[in-house]
Amino acid sequence: MTAAPIEAGTVYLVGAGPGDPELLTLRAARLLGAAELVVHDALVSPEILDMAHADAELVDVGKRHGGRHTCQDRINRMLADAASEGRVVVRLKGGDPLVFGRGGEEALFLRARGVRFELVPGITTALGVSAYAGMPLTHRGLSSCVTLVTGHEFPDGGSAVDWEALARTGGTLVVYMAMGRLAKIAERLIRAGRAPGTPAAVVESATRHEQRVKCGTLATVGVEARGSSAPGVLLVGEVARLRDELAWFEGGRREAWERGSGPGQFADATG
Amino acid sequence: MTAAPIEAGTVYLVGAGPGDPELLTLRAARLLGAAELVVHDALVSPEILDMAHADAELVDVGKRHGGRHTCQDRINRMLADAASEGRVVVRLKGGDPLVFGRGGEEALFLRARGVRFELVPGITTALGVSAYAGMPLTHRGLSSCVTLVTGHEFPDGGSAVDWEALARTGGTLVVYMAMGRLAKIAERLIRAGRAPGTPAAVVESATRHEQRVKCGTLATVGVEARGSSAPGVLLVGEVARLRDELAWFEGGRREAWERGSGPGQFADATG
Repeated sequence: MTAAPIEAGTVYLVGAGPGDPELLTLRAARLLGAAELVVHDALVSPEILDMAHADAELVDVGKRHGGRHTCQDRINRMLADAASEGRVVVRLKGGDPLVFGRGGEEALFLRARGVRFELVPGITTALGVSAYAGMPLTHRGLSSCVTLVTGHEFPDGGSAVDWEALARTGGTLVVYMAMGRLAKIAERLIRAGRAPGTPAAVVESATRHEQRVKCGTLATVGVEARGSSAPGVLLVGEVARLRDELAWFEGGRREAWERGSGPGQFADATG
Repeated sequence: MTAAPIEAGTVYLVGAGPGDPELLTLRAARLLGAAELVVHDALVSPEILDMAHADAELVDVGKRHGGRHTCQDRINRMLADAASEGRVVVRLKGGDPLVFGRGGEEALFLRARGVRFELVPGITTALGVSAYAGMPLTHRGLSSCVTLVTGHEFPDGGSAVDWEALARTGGTLVVYMAMGRLAKIAERLIRAGRAPGTPAAVVESATRHEQRVKCGTLATVGVEARGSSAPGVLLVGEVARLRDELAWFEGGRREAWERGSGPGQFADATG
């Protein structure tokens, strides 16, 4: 494989995936190892940050540093300034930078300032949830499309999203940042015409050791997940039923992690 | 980073991403290097298959080998039999195995046969298109949700998808496997209420050197892409307009590939 170049004076807007460090892309891992400055969100896990070069400067720009707007403006300037000094800059975001990640806004700022950038996709949370919780996003006979939306799009008024339409697509719906308003979202979907008995699941800390999945229906899922505080998503659709058969992560790798089971013939061939 | 184990007698259902080999996950690359048998789709690129162990057996189960149903049944049995013999098996699919990838069906078959499996997510095509064509799937003020669907869901009757609802979500729509029926899909969305002037783009061979992007509106996109034969997706939504400013791939990396430009300070630190 010929690796694409890594260039000085460039900002790489990189998706870090849903949590499991092995779900970084090869490109993301190489960039992380080459970056002189890594500007990351609070949600990026320590095991991933450990992949940065020992001499790299790491800056956590998680929300605790201030209000949303001020913070974003400060991040934009930090990225542009560092690249203008000729540094290799990685802007590391949970999931994918262009799915609820504001990567587009940062890229537009850089372009306006004449700073080179590259967009590196990441495994967005819905894909991590789907694989590690055993619930295909699409499945013949059960779901022919999938919609990703955020719980932040659920104010009492003024949402740009048409929830009636979302309830009626006939496919899987994944609601990011759903915690804290699960019951309301479920109720809204039922009111919009989705059957109360539709299978639904809440997945917290997806793809991490501590992943937790709570299953129910649209009518019960708000109650199932009451009291949860970890970052979580809501998955709604018939595919959630498949988890009964497809939940390999809890029964498989977790157990294997503990017993350290034997690899196949070539398992050590590639680091 | 502690890598998860790779176990004999297990089938790994792995997403190979949209094309660029550097968009494989670390987990996928390790599994590919460790597999004794790799069963792959026709769309997986040769550079990715080159990452398999030199002694691994590679089987191409692309569509040309026969009808869809027979083929799937044969694939299922091949996977189960090889794992039952104690081999490390990788089932490699373009994109993500659980987004229009039939990974769920294969996993259900394996579960029914008592064969261990693991689901490894991949960068689904929509994410590759979005990053490499410079069109964020969500963007503040332009799109607050994104729906993925296939062009195969567009028969003259009997679709499980509610196209009226899809036209009305207010977000970005990405239609996989859209080539050959672009004009019909666009027309259907307009009839369902999406404005004819909505920006739209057709992206062929996303994330590969030969990537091609054709922009227009819902009303013109069928004409723009007439005569194309490469695998392609249709992206519909206001975010397609951002490409004018965010198209880094054509202006950036392609050019850099040709001139072999200089890396930053740590660029060679990690292979």
